[in-house]
Amino acid sequence: MSNTDKPSRNRQFLLAHRPVGEPGPDTWELAEASLHEPADGQVLIRHDYISVDPAMRGWMNAGKSYVPPVEIGAVMRAYAGGEVVASKHPDFSEGDAVTGVLGVQEYSISDGKGLRKVDLSLAEMPIYLSVLGMTGMTAYFGLFDVGEYREGDVVVVSGAAGAVGMIVGQIAKLKGSQVVGIAGGPEKCRYVTEELGFDACIDYKAEDVAQRLGVLCPKGVDLYFDNVGGDILEAVLSRIALHARVVICGAISQYNATKPRGPANYLQLLVQRATMRGMVVFDHAARYHEAAQAMSGWLGEGKLKHREDIVEGLEQFPDALMRLFRGENTGKLLLRVDH
Amino acid sequence: MSNTDKPSRNRQFLLAHRPVGEPGPDTWELAEASLHEPADGQVLIRHDYISVDPAMRGWMNAGKSYVPPVEIGAVMRAYAGGEVVASKHPDFSEGDAVTGVLGVQEYSISDGKGLRKVDLSLAEMPIYLSVLGMTGMTAYFGLFDVGEYREGDVVVVSGAAGAVGMIVGQIAKLKGSQVVGIAGGPEKCRYVTEELGFDACIDYKAEDVAQRLGVLCPKGVDLYFDNVGGDILEAVLSRIALHARVVICGAISQYNATKPRGPANYLQLLVQRATMRGMVVFDHAARYHEAAQAMSGWLGEGKLKHREDIVEGLEQFPDALMRLFRGENTGKLLLRVDH
Repeated sequence: MSNTDKPSRNRQFLLAHRPVGEPGPDTWELAEASLHEPADGQVLIRHDYISVDPAMRGWMNAGKSYVPPVEIGAVMRAYAGGEVVASKHPDFSEGDAVTGVLGVQEYSISDGKGLRKVDLSLAEMPIYLSVLGMTGMTAYFGLFDVGEYREGDVVVVSGAAGAVGMIVGQIAKLKGSQVVGIAGGPEKCRYVTEELGFDACIDYKAEDVAQRLGVLCPKGVDLYFDNVGGDILEAVLSRIALHARVVICGAISQYNATKPRGPANYLQLLVQRATMRGMVVFDHAARYHEAAQAMSGWLGEGKLKHREDIVEGLEQFPDALMRLFRGENTGKLLLRVDH
Repeated sequence: MSNTDKPSRNRQFLLAHRPVGEPGPDTWELAEASLHEPADGQVLIRHDYISVDPAMRGWMNAGKSYVPPVEIGAVMRAYAGGEVVASKHPDFSEGDAVTGVLGVQEYSISDGKGLRKVDLSLAEMPIYLSVLGMTGMTAYFGLFDVGEYREGDVVVVSGAAGAVGMIVGQIAKLKGSQVVGIAGGPEKCRYVTEELGFDACIDYKAEDVAQRLGVLCPKGVDLYFDNVGGDILEAVLSRIALHARVVICGAISQYNATKPRGPANYLQLLVQRATMRGMVVFDHAARYHEAAQAMSGWLGEGKLKHREDIVEGLEQFPDALMRLFRGENTGKLLLRVDH
């Protein structure tokens, strides 16, 4: 990096207060830190895209979870993708495109751990933060490993117009399944059926989900991939088939709830001898290459559609995050960082 | 059967009204039917013991479940054991001891389907309705197949002084596990630890279950066998270990609830990448002989204790059933029928 375009300031979102319920104005502090040259073994990365994910809400809570909570005063955890602008690390050079858990900020210093080089001649950065990133890995391993997908399964996906849901449904379609999505509003449902090719999509804001599932899946639901929890989880549980599998990938309806609730009809698991299993994508890291290869193939053949919902400007982060909980995004939500 | 002791009347409990919440005085009708000789291919069975099970509450509800509901006006469904007193069936003779789904009544006519001959010289009838019956099968297949028991698992069982729970815990102890029971009251807890040999028993009426589990199982609970649901399910979920398995065998706290509830912290399944799976023992019928052989062996070696809680008199059935929901039984609850 030349001295003239050398960045000196780094705007970053710090977690100022742990929210109770919905994040509010006092949750975040937009701070400005000074930037240092990377030390030996480090790289300096300019962030071009930051991934905005429902899981972030969980990371903001105190207490033990599958990752430690973000500390008060720390930069908010986030996946991001960008360019190495200075390197004192043997494995990375200036100009390398990389992704990693780099935080909601304009720049980061990394020791290379967890940093992944990506090839922008094969796919653009947003795709490495969606289909070819954690989103795609979650869909792939959630469906096949956690959900133990079987040929002929009738598959239902909630958050069907969301980043993970849209991929889950498309993969299940590629495998020959009947796939029903659940999404909010006619526009999303149209997208899910007409653009993504799901067999049907239930608009949970306008339709009775359980009733519609009864019509669409008269033999019951074999595999339900749940991103939302709450009423929709209960509605699908009321329609599961014998030996159904329910993948608990997320529960966006519950993340801001001060009194979260479980599915009142969980005894459907007993009635149908069904399995409900939670997932965290990191567990499957040893086999990411397998999923990435499959996804790349489908992308290359034009069989897997993707869509990124890109918000301009780091300062939009608090609102972008709330868009997820308001269900306003279609596809993978990303922040584009201006420099 | 000689003409002199030939029964002519058959007292039976009919389901008069489907209860909303707890069964009440108008739920049952104690009726008297006349008895006929068995027709060709039938046997007449004198019931000596009737099994009283929490699952009965589910059978009383309308709607689809793993078995059809008991119809209004029909004899209440129940496992029972007794003696063939007249036979026109080639496979059964007068004097044969049998068990089957024969109903809450003094006698039944059977076409032999589902009827099982048992050898009273090896074990008394109550044992065939408990450890060597559905109770024992449920414990065995619930632990090993549904719960995918692994050597070294830390096992927690609710309803630990109940029919199924006491067997689950003892088998897990035989396999070398640390086993913690959960039961109501000091007397049951004393029985569970001192008589049955569990490592510990938490009195949920007097102790904070989650807190105690934190002390007793500092590395978390690997396998939880749930018979109760409600607060106790939530408490144990808060303490599950990575990749834990939760067997949903029953939910006695919820059966009479007009507003049943699910575990509010079911996202622990995600955090711990855990599995919750429902079971119905019938699914394992093809392998009952395997379980019965193992149980008989342990019984013979004196390694498996059992206890039956026997209530005298058919007419006690409504109250006996309520004893289950009030948590008043220790061990397998049976009615003994006077003749």
